[in-house]
Amino acid sequence: MKTIVIAAHPDDETLGVGGTLLRRKAEGNKTAWLIVTGISPEQGWSAERVSQREQEIEQVSRLLEFDEVYRLNFPAARLDEVPLRDLVTAMSGVFRQFEPSEVFVPHFSDIHSDHRIVFEAMASVRKWFRYPFVQRILCYETLSETDFGLGDTGVFRPNYFLDVSPYMDTKIEALRVYASELAEFPFPRSEYAVRALAAVRGAASGYLAAEAFELLRERG
Amino acid sequence: MKTIVIAAHPDDETLGVGGTLLRRKAEGNKTAWLIVTGISPEQGWSAERVSQREQEIEQVSRLLEFDEVYRLNFPAARLDEVPLRDLVTAMSGVFRQFEPSEVFVPHFSDIHSDHRIVFEAMASVRKWFRYPFVQRILCYETLSETDFGLGDTGVFRPNYFLDVSPYMDTKIEALRVYASELAEFPFPRSEYAVRALAAVRGAASGYLAAEAFELLRERG
Amino acid sequence: MKTIVIAAHPDDETLGVGGTLLRRKAEGNKTAWLIVTGISPEQGWSAERVSQREQEIEQVSRLLEFDEVYRLNFPAARLDEVPLRDLVTAMSGVFRQFEPSEVFVPHFSDIHSDHRIVFEAMASVRKWFRYPFVQRILCYETLSETDFGLGDTGVFRPNYFLDVSPYMDTKIEALRVYASELAEFPFPRSEYAVRALAAVRGAASGYLAAEAFELLRERG
Amino acid sequence: MKTIVIAAHPDDETLGVGGTLLRRKAEGNKTAWLIVTGISPEQGWSAERVSQREQEIEQVSRLLEFDEVYRLNFPAARLDEVPLRDLVTAMSGVFRQFEPSEVFVPHFSDIHSDHRIVFEAMASVRKWFRYPFVQRILCYETLSETDFGLGDTGVFRPNYFLDVSPYMDTKIEALRVYASELAEFPFPRSEYAVRALAAVRGAASGYLAAEAFELLRERG
Amino acid sequence: MKTIVIAAHPDDETLGVGGTLLRRKAEGNKTAWLIVTGISPEQGWSAERVSQREQEIEQVSRLLEFDEVYRLNFPAARLDEVPLRDLVTAMSGVFRQFEPSEVFVPHFSDIHSDHRIVFEAMASVRKWFRYPFVQRILCYETLSETDFGLGDTGVFRPNYFLDVSPYMDTKIEALRVYASELAEFPFPRSEYAVRALAAVRGAASGYLAAEAFELLRERG
Amino acid sequence: MKTIVIAAHPDDETLGVGGTLLRRKAEGNKTAWLIVTGISPEQGWSAERVSQREQEIEQVSRLLEFDEVYRLNFPAARLDEVPLRDLVTAMSGVFRQFEPSEVFVPHFSDIHSDHRIVFEAMASVRKWFRYPFVQRILCYETLSETDFGLGDTGVFRPNYFLDVSPYMDTKIEALRVYASELAEFPFPRSEYAVRALAAVRGAASGYLAAEAFELLRERG
Repeated sequence: MKTIVIAAHPDDETLGVGGTLLRRKAEGNKTAWLIVTGISPEQGWSAERVSQREQEIEQVSRLLEFDEVYRLNFPAARLDEVPLRDLVTAMSGVFRQFEPSEVFVPHFSDIHSDHRIVFEAMASVRKWFRYPFVQRILCYETLSETDFGLGDTGVFRPNYFLDVSPYMDTKIEALRVYASELAEFPFPRSEYAVRALAAVRGAASGYLAAEAFELLRERG
Repeated sequence: MKTIVIAAHPDDETLGVGGTLLRRKAEGNKTAWLIVTGISPEQGWSAERVSQREQEIEQVSRLLEFDEVYRLNFPAARLDEVPLRDLVTAMSGVFRQFEPSEVFVPHFSDIHSDHRIVFEAMASVRKWFRYPFVQRILCYETLSETDFGLGDTGVFRPNYFLDVSPYMDTKIEALRVYASELAEFPFPRSEYAVRALAAVRGAASGYLAAEAFELLRERG
Repeated sequence: MKTIVIAAHPDDETLGVGGTLLRRKAEGNKTAWLIVTGISPEQGWSAERVSQREQEIEQVSRLLEFDEVYRLNFPAARLDEVPLRDLVTAMSGVFRQFEPSEVFVPHFSDIHSDHRIVFEAMASVRKWFRYPFVQRILCYETLSETDFGLGDTGVFRPNYFLDVSPYMDTKIEALRVYASELAEFPFPRSEYAVRALAAVRGAASGYLAAEAFELLRERG
Repeated sequence: MKTIVIAAHPDDETLGVGGTLLRRKAEGNKTAWLIVTGISPEQGWSAERVSQREQEIEQVSRLLEFDEVYRLNFPAARLDEVPLRDLVTAMSGVFRQFEPSEVFVPHFSDIHSDHRIVFEAMASVRKWFRYPFVQRILCYETLSETDFGLGDTGVFRPNYFLDVSPYMDTKIEALRVYASELAEFPFPRSEYAVRALAAVRGAASGYLAAEAFELLRERG
Repeated sequence: MKTIVIAAHPDDETLGVGGTLLRRKAEGNKTAWLIVTGISPEQGWSAERVSQREQEIEQVSRLLEFDEVYRLNFPAARLDEVPLRDLVTAMSGVFRQFEPSEVFVPHFSDIHSDHRIVFEAMASVRKWFRYPFVQRILCYETLSETDFGLGDTGVFRPNYFLDVSPYMDTKIEALRVYASELAEFPFPRSEYAVRALAAVRGAASGYLAAEAFELLRERG
Repeated sequence: MKTIVIAAHPDDETLGVGGTLLRRKAEGNKTAWLIVTGISPEQGWSAERVSQREQEIEQVSRLLEFDEVYRLNFPAARLDEVPLRDLVTAMSGVFRQFEPSEVFVPHFSDIHSDHRIVFEAMASVRKWFRYPFVQRILCYETLSETDFGLGDTGVFRPNYFLDVSPYMDTKIEALRVYASELAEFPFPRSEYAVRALAAVRGAASGYLAAEAFELLRERG
């Protein structure tokens, strides 16, 4: 089996699927990281931040043991300005190359418009005649996005829980790589909040720590 | 793995899960049939109908290759008069005995109140600390119930498709056992309608014939 | 009465409303086909495909007996790049000219973004003070779009069923005109899938073949 | 055509469907009133109230010009204690006798449990093979019930608006018959509230006064 | 202001509203505890368990500083066998006596049928002309019930967050009184799970610990 | 406390929040009006209409007693062409300046795409770590937009009712300033329709006239 996680921005993959990715590796899967957006000096980011971001991606890539990292470098926080077709074409190319059987996408109610657009661009993944290798599609939750989400028009309803107890420490280690994105609790992107969410999902499923997902489609 | 299907009335299991049950057997699972209601002369059914029903159950039990058949014999079309606790207790006993890992239940929007009550009685199956062996719970669809269902307050949203192409003929054979429940198309419980539904679900998932389910909860 | 079908792309009208359009004609209605997108060599389509498309539209127009065909020629698969106001203005012009009383639109959960955008652009059709002649608005379902749709945020809930038994053969004939869009079953755009869906909708409503719709608004 | 309104209690029919019933009569339909509950001295009602209720029913029956009045006399505010099957059997008998083509039922989210139970008991009306004469089923709204309803689990979504401008005065006259159920505005069952709701529904549909419904199912 | 919490069973009030109740007291409100069910030797509970339960109620009553404790003693886990009207009448009496302005009720999607029935019985609390003193109605969440709930037909959507940081320790102390209901984490009714949930709700609202609610209705 | 209303176009604030804004002033709050779009000769509006609009804004600003009026002047009916980030940045600036604790936004199901886009741009208001001063966010309803809304994918569910009886006359006076936007009843933007809606919301909450809102999030 092959597993891919679609991240609108680096750190989504760790927050939402970090433990599961390590578990999939332990189970013998190949795993890939598809990062949709990127930052660059042209978009007004400092060279320092851009270079730091490169190092973060490299470090997390090692910690989460990805086999492949794909980067599309669409402009962060500006995906609504990109023609949907360009997004679909770029992601589609990665899919045809990696041929994942399991796909993790952001949730359609996430508060960040980039997340919702990535979800929409990934919608056609469900068409078996386009991507016959895809067998399971799951939405993950992103602390500070899903929990503030547009819950009125759609809410995260976890129906798929995975035990990630053995992988929590590495997940936290990967999280710490994104030091500039973290802050002290009760800030949602903090170690304590991440552990608390894993505990709440674990209490719901019988594990010391769990990641929760919403299954969109499985076929087999 | 062990698979159980909860049927409010005999024929639900064939209509909704017939192909999947045969597939699970072929995959090496043990399978069980939990029939919640029964008919009896005391409830006003003719001795002939009651005996015919016995034969139907026996025949279908053989055709679908069930390892176990559990019968609770609550009064058909009168489940709303049974204390919920009695239902839960009886089903719970079967669960503790068979220890299923995969559970198929009727859909919560089915038009028949018996179906909705069975769904409700089975709700606590999700509590991992009560039934630690349960790992996957799926709602199935029942032609003539789900398709007329209370779609306003909840609608069948299939997100789990299983290829049952090799098992369609036996499924139809099992269906024919319930001759008295069938009528000519466009009656929903007819061979043509059953094959058409399998085709529509197949077109959605890439198989010549499929059964579709709504995943309620999976853990592992 | 006058009936109009809004098709994001040619073949939607046949898949979703083909039988009903023929029935409306038989009932004495005038019918119109509003095709929102078009293809052209400038967009990278071969001259041959463009000319074939012209022939398809002409043939289907005859088979479905349309009184009027309106073509807006917005770029296919790129509607998200068109200002919504331009879409609304163009469709609005057609509405003021044809003055339909019955309107068929794509479903808001269809997987193709063009379908969702057409739905959104048509939303103001509900305003009686803008289009006083409109009395009934129905969403239709499109095989290979509605069945893969974003069911999480909205799902097709048919509440309006029309008997199209006498028109199925002509509907299939019209479908065959779009030979390049079809493939063998279980591909959703195939004769067998179309007939199976008509049978499933028929079983739900008591007809040998039916088309199903979701009523958005009726006034009278 | 034949139209039936199912009222959990007398006055529901006037509040929700009063104007439409008069319009249907004017259009040449036969109309029937099915009153599900009744009051009696045995249930603790005074002989005076019971006799007053009889007179109310008679008067409203004349004002709304019903062709038939069916009364099932199940205990008011206690429908949850009645076996669902008894309710279904009793209503079913009326349906087979009157053979309505158009059916008005209370909304499934009404706050009064009697309303929700009547809705549930009427659910099987959708099965065409049981009631082949039924072609259209609509939920109506009841001031003081629908507007306080369990909106969380289902909300009244009007999609069917009927012009009842010419019938508002008679509707109000019928309402006044239920003097003991009325109180001064802002009490919901008051002339002013009824006229205001008709105006709000009219503004949404282009009429001076309208009644709004939610279409559950139409076939034809 | 006066605040009342409706608990299907003792411990719901602590799990869902423990911190908020203490905060309301600190803010000068009077608070009341309405316990809907009870246990008794007649229902098969040991005299020891019944007497222990009495002590628990007394201790928690002191710890949460309730001004009033109302006990209806309907049979636990058997509310579906109680006529809804009896429940409504009994609760209504308490309401007329205490005249609360703020009401906390269990969530309508909780997995325990007792919770859903209490919610339903409390529905009419929204009618201002019956309970003119009620101004705010909120659903609370109950670990081990709401998190396993019938999320398919309605899901807990918190939209109201209260900072309970200063009261967490007393809340935990009250929780420990129910020793027989607790077990070790990942059991949902455990100190760690309760603290984790408070942290997750706090991260969503900016507090070290929060309780989350779903507002049903506020007027003023 | 400080209250801000976000209006896609002038008149939304009066229709949806007019009475409440006056009440908030009477309660001692500061209030602000954030007008997202503007019209200009460059967009094809006559100089006369533009100047009339200026006068309307000035007059309404006085009548509703706003402390602050912020105008972003994005192009009306063309918000879908504006990068979301530009909208967010502009609104964010106003928020940081005024520091509102209570925010009124258009409803996410409004039929006008400008309303939905304003809602989306305001979504991040829920992030407490971005706008720590915001404590309550409410959606308001806009006659002629919310009542024709995309109810299929989300419907206005009022759960928050405010008594605006003393302020109705001034609200109507403010409404009349927008003479060019009004027409005779049953046109939705008419005095009679506005009073009828206030009466319907009042009947639901026990006041002679009320404005109804949907609470999205409150924290405190």
